[in-house]
Amino acid sequence: MNDSNGYDIEDLKVGMTATFAKTVTEADIVMFAGVSGDVNAIHINEEYAQTTQFGGRIAHGMLSASVISAAIATQLPGPGSVYMKQSLNFRAPVRPGDTVHATVRVSEIFMDKRRVLLETVCRVRDTVVIDGEALIYATSSAARAKAAAKNVTTAPSVV
Amino acid sequence: MNDSNGYDIEDLKVGMTATFAKTVTEADIVMFAGVSGDVNAIHINEEYAQTTQFGGRIAHGMLSASVISAAIATQLPGPGSVYMKQSLNFRAPVRPGDTVHATVRVSEIFMDKRRVLLETVCRVRDTVVIDGEALIYATSSAARAKAAAKNVTTAPSVV
Repeated sequence: MNDSNGYDIEDLKVGMTATFAKTVTEADIVMFAGVSGDVNAIHINEEYAQTTQFGGRIAHGMLSASVISAAIATQLPGPGSVYMKQSLNFRAPVRPGDTVHATVRVSEIFMDKRRVLLETVCRVRDTVVIDGEALIYATSSAARAKAAAKNVTTAPSVV
Repeated sequence: MNDSNGYDIEDLKVGMTATFAKTVTEADIVMFAGVSGDVNAIHINEEYAQTTQFGGRIAHGMLSASVISAAIATQLPGPGSVYMKQSLNFRAPVRPGDTVHATVRVSEIFMDKRRVLLETVCRVRDTVVIDGEALIYATSSAARAKAAAKNVTTAPSVV
């Protein structure tokens, strides 16, 4: 583990998993509209949303996807992770009050490049609402030891 | 155009572009931490962030990426768009006060499936901070006309 209690690349094994879950509230949707600038009526206008196939307001896809970011940043690999890539397949709507469970699973480790590939799946109850993959640059205990041996100050590479 | 002033698939041409820009403020970062659950120190702890390679707090990658969602939902194709896929390559950090310009460009149109592929690029000044692609399901004037001819009520498919 690194100083921030995140996993170093040397700690990771294929198959390791972690989950972060968050209830997407009406307040989250309102705040996300402001933060993103995405004020699509389907997210903020209940009267309009009721006339659509969804029958009511739904959360922004990128709002649900942001729970993946929390799973990576707080759990696996955790603090010290640098986000390099993310792919997202939006498969089903998320409604106000739904709890999004973002599960990340180590699928491949590129030790020489300090990168880890994660499968990333968001579920609401038994429904997959988003799936995809993330590529993360991880901290390395070997790199820290090497830098310390050279008596060089290392700043953690943290996103 | 559809009833919500979004482009139908029949209106789109390869090469069409649109840009949505938003300044990422400190308030946005604080709210995004709450909305996503991503409370990584690099985003919310200035003292810690100053000890890292970034020299201060940076915005969540998914926060900057959410500006792409706004470009798609409000501009091109605009209201009526359903988000199907998004890929994101995080290339450079975004700092509080930076203005993210999200540009989307039509790169391929799949008329039979009512899908459009967009190149999606976020820039801060001259630096590309995120690039990738989005796949969008668009509204269709032909489908509306066909449904009207059958005297069937059509609910718009809007995300």
